[in-house]
Amino acid sequence: MKRTLSIWFHNRFSALPRITGLFSGKGFPVESMAVGVASEDGVTRMTLTTLGDDSLVERITKQLHRLIDVIQVVELASVSSVERELALVKVQSSPARQQEIVQLADVFRGRVVDMGARTVTVELTGRAEKINAAIDRFSPYGVVEFSRSGAVALKRDDAPERVGKTMAVTPV
Amino acid sequence: MKRTLSIWFHNRFSALPRITGLFSGKGFPVESMAVGVASEDGVTRMTLTTLGDDSLVERITKQLHRLIDVIQVVELASVSSVERELALVKVQSSPARQQEIVQLADVFRGRVVDMGARTVTVELTGRAEKINAAIDRFSPYGVVEFSRSGAVALKRDDAPERVGKTMAVTPV
Repeated sequence: MKRTLSIWFHNRFSALPRITGLFSGKGFPVESMAVGVASEDGVTRMTLTTLGDDSLVERITKQLHRLIDVIQVVELASVSSVERELALVKVQSSPARQQEIVQLADVFRGRVVDMGARTVTVELTGRAEKINAAIDRFSPYGVVEFSRSGAVALKRDDAPERVGKTMAVTPV
Repeated sequence: MKRTLSIWFHNRFSALPRITGLFSGKGFPVESMAVGVASEDGVTRMTLTTLGDDSLVERITKQLHRLIDVIQVVELASVSSVERELALVKVQSSPARQQEIVQLADVFRGRVVDMGARTVTVELTGRAEKINAAIDRFSPYGVVEFSRSGAVALKRDDAPERVGKTMAVTPV
């Protein structure tokens, strides 16, 4: 089962290898990971998707909290959170095909962010399944390359906290 | 100086801590990191932003190539690449303020992805500076929380490769 974790941490040099090392050491596959600055100074927020059952997620959450750089870990249940991914997809094109590709981008509410003689680059956002579907639909034209951000997620307004999955520790 | 690297690697258990450990071990700050599936089976693509001069980037590129899981490393120069970041921003709201917040989201070409009694969540994409500016503009309303993906980047159509920065090694 796919699980999405939000991890707030102090982005010191050792933090990223320690956090990712914990997952690899415990045999948790990291499917995707998005790391960006968070609200407070020096605090970084990571959204990480992994696979595992409840007991495994509980164990990894506890062990993450033991890391000195980790401030907070929250699991985001898909029913009560907004989850989005960003993808840039470069599609093979020709003057004759540009219009078709732009129309297909429109179907997926994508935005054309670069248009050259030979390729069109489309920006897409949505849940992973939507991005997968879009890439599938572009593939007959020839997908030259793509780059995906991994999931980014926030709890929905008024969604209850998942008991036992949230634990705040004092920042060091 | 901000540098953006695309790193393709086999996402085995040890790959992420090894790659992030190389940056921390060499004193390279990882500003943001986006990790998602890449075109081929079992291959993952990471977009990583760091700070450093040319000689430091050359050194880290060489050392990344020595890692068994790393397939390719390419530096993406900002002038010849499309770079985008995704952010979900949850803004404090009230029925009276909703309209204003939605209009501000429009200014930044954002999309409202959740609307509750107390908050509005906006999806934004753009370069990091645009996301920063948008968060600044939302802050008078009260930004409850946000989550950012870090940069995702692709070379523009017909942009030349940066000599000395691209080196393909045989996948293992």
